[in-house]
Amino acid sequence: MPETVKTVLAESQLPRHWYNINADLPEPLAPVLNPQTHEPVTPDDLAPIFPRAVIEQEMSTEREIGIPGPVRDAYRQWRPTPLYRARRLEHALQTPARIYYKYEGVSPAGSHKPNTAIPQAFYNHAEGVRRITTETGAGQWGSSLALAGAMFELEIAVYMVRVSYEQKPYRRAFMESFGAHCIASPSDTTAAGRAVLAEHPDSTGSLGIAISEAVELAAEREDTKYALGSVLNHVLLHQTVAGLEAQVQLEMVDDYPDMVIGCTGGGSNFAGLAFPFLGEQLRGGRKVDFVAVEPAACPTLTRGRFAYDWGDTGHLTPLTKMHTLGSGFVPPGFHAGGLRYHGMAPQVSHLTALGYIRPRAYGQLECFAAGLEFARAEGIIPAPEANHAVKATIDEAIRCREAGESKALLFNLCGHGHFDMQAYTDYLAGRLSDEHTSDAEQAMALSGLPQV
Amino acid sequence: MPETVKTVLAESQLPRHWYNINADLPEPLAPVLNPQTHEPVTPDDLAPIFPRAVIEQEMSTEREIGIPGPVRDAYRQWRPTPLYRARRLEHALQTPARIYYKYEGVSPAGSHKPNTAIPQAFYNHAEGVRRITTETGAGQWGSSLALAGAMFELEIAVYMVRVSYEQKPYRRAFMESFGAHCIASPSDTTAAGRAVLAEHPDSTGSLGIAISEAVELAAEREDTKYALGSVLNHVLLHQTVAGLEAQVQLEMVDDYPDMVIGCTGGGSNFAGLAFPFLGEQLRGGRKVDFVAVEPAACPTLTRGRFAYDWGDTGHLTPLTKMHTLGSGFVPPGFHAGGLRYHGMAPQVSHLTALGYIRPRAYGQLECFAAGLEFARAEGIIPAPEANHAVKATIDEAIRCREAGESKALLFNLCGHGHFDMQAYTDYLAGRLSDEHTSDAEQAMALSGLPQV
Repeated sequence: MPETVKTVLAESQLPRHWYNINADLPEPLAPVLNPQTHEPVTPDDLAPIFPRAVIEQEMSTEREIGIPGPVRDAYRQWRPTPLYRARRLEHALQTPARIYYKYEGVSPAGSHKPNTAIPQAFYNHAEGVRRITTETGAGQWGSSLALAGAMFELEIAVYMVRVSYEQKPYRRAFMESFGAHCIASPSDTTAAGRAVLAEHPDSTGSLGIAISEAVELAAEREDTKYALGSVLNHVLLHQTVAGLEAQVQLEMVDDYPDMVIGCTGGGSNFAGLAFPFLGEQLRGGRKVDFVAVEPAACPTLTRGRFAYDWGDTGHLTPLTKMHTLGSGFVPPGFHAGGLRYHGMAPQVSHLTALGYIRPRAYGQLECFAAGLEFARAEGIIPAPEANHAVKATIDEAIRCREAGESKALLFNLCGHGHFDMQAYTDYLAGRLSDEHTSDAEQAMALSGLPQV
Repeated sequence: MPETVKTVLAESQLPRHWYNINADLPEPLAPVLNPQTHEPVTPDDLAPIFPRAVIEQEMSTEREIGIPGPVRDAYRQWRPTPLYRARRLEHALQTPARIYYKYEGVSPAGSHKPNTAIPQAFYNHAEGVRRITTETGAGQWGSSLALAGAMFELEIAVYMVRVSYEQKPYRRAFMESFGAHCIASPSDTTAAGRAVLAEHPDSTGSLGIAISEAVELAAEREDTKYALGSVLNHVLLHQTVAGLEAQVQLEMVDDYPDMVIGCTGGGSNFAGLAFPFLGEQLRGGRKVDFVAVEPAACPTLTRGRFAYDWGDTGHLTPLTKMHTLGSGFVPPGFHAGGLRYHGMAPQVSHLTALGYIRPRAYGQLECFAAGLEFARAEGIIPAPEANHAVKATIDEAIRCREAGESKALLFNLCGHGHFDMQAYTDYLAGRLSDEHTSDAEQAMALSGLPQV
């Protein structure tokens, strides 16, 4: 059996800043628009729902943004995270490729999400906020914000899509264990929720409705703000701590990636690993093949349109230019719950449109098969989301074997699958299938884009 | 918020040997007896079910036993594990005590169990064994052996108590994800299983029956051996890697424990942390207060008898002198599934009888409350087993506050609770209660001890 090769950083090597790719974009991002006026949004437009420090980060073009001391202190509970060389997987695949993975599942919530939950909680706490609202579908994000809230003495109210609330009681128990308040959405606690319930008393909810409820509560209360777990610039910024660590770790083993691979739902996991390397390339450094992997059942980058769209189904959010399947798009019920968003982070979309990122889509069955192959070789059961990156990595490693090429592949193992064993149970029992949306359904959802 | 204080060892500081407390016992252990002859067992008696290297370790009195290279290589996937100073918990308790915890939940199986699963798999593989059988109740041990089997190319057959097999599908999926074969016990694959089914076709099984099935299969096949996850000397030996690391880590922060606390089921988790410190004391070093914490519902050390007994309900195993509630003892259905064993490791029993270890018992409700207090302060949801150690630690920290004493407390956070969220869900919903066994039931179970 090949030996374990793990590269560990000392605590003193935990990054002191995040990396902001807005400083190095070859063309600036299209502005975010006010949904009423279609004028670019101002910091004041966002002030009711986000703390000022977060709004500044959202709009900043500074390359390096300092990580506050208390955030680094909280990060240090599990950071720096290890970088593994997947020697046992390489051996199993008989590939000459050098496979590396950055393992973010060592966080207390089991995924990369606390990388942004903690600074968001910190900034809210520092500005005197008492309560944060958010929405959660699968529960990864809500769990991470619950953890961060416990650390910074904030009340956390999580609107959890009702069908998940009922089907995922363990995720709910996880959030409640940290003292968070979980509300099944639609609920009678907001006008948005009551409106839905009046029309559909048996509504099982949607992420769009949950966002509307969380934003409504934050907007109407002085001491309450809202937090989002992906898509926005400041979230991607916070996630770059992973890529910055990986750069140092690869330098320690004297290697550099030829390909960087990450799964994409809202885009923050992929960006967190890829952007520090992509920034180097944009500043004249070495060219890397950046591969964003998404589910074929929610193919935002591979089959969506790059256009202005709303971030939510309720059309309360600003308009952002991004790859989108249309805010009315409802993906089939596949198991990577973290990859079901209709849109994509504007930064990831922009860089994909400019040709710097190569998107790829896979069906869930081939992803679960790849995840199990990885688990048996490397000892870690990946989250279903992460299986998409695993699949793309294994495919490339096999291609390397066939072509006799020795490339360095780096991917982000963004979480473990401990809370996803129902999906593995279903897969092992042969109860899963590949579900796709028809071209007609996709065209229908895209027909609802705003006229900008 | 107090900052995180985590002490991390370099990979080069991973111990090169395990510590064997048999070398330092003030009086030797009572011999293990053949159940038929009542003569001390010989290595040959054990050869049909254990590999030779394991039998040697079981009987060794060498102080240091080298950890083989391939085992260290596999350990390095998650070892050395971090030692945390629980600064946020100390702050919440307003205690002058210095609380440290060794976190074993970072292993891929989420507990300390792979510390012994991996060497056991290695030794079997090295001696040409193709298949290992074992039993599992709650599933922690079966998961760890499944992982180790995938690493060392061994088939793993896990007899899983039928009620757990049906109620814990996620643990089963975890084992199957690593390629292990799970069999609901009683099964028709063994004579022992068929005998039970003939009499009780609807039997929900027991750990005792599952042990009988696993041992039977191992004994009758040349290429198949058996593995146990606690109780035996070699298992406790392998677990000392945790305590040896903790010694170095505490030296790095210039501290030494006044009290070492661990939960006890079969005893290996407690011994793994405590024995290296206890060994120092036995060799003339500093005196430490060793506290073994068990559930009030299965009070082996606090209310059992120190006597010869069988290890299983089927009376197939050798007789060992240990604290026991009687091999017919059936604990009530409390939630720390890893602490339900009727007996106790002979080494832990012996040292308790000699006065070196102080046992203590707690009810499950106070343990869950302590676990949630810990989670909200430290960000990690403990396994229900670990909550027993957390409870004893918090009690002592409060006592220190009241007495104005600044003690160093060290406990073993032996696993996370990701697969135990049903227990937390039940606790949060107020559906749990403290269950005890009556004195009469306990006396009845003890009346079945063998006449030695």
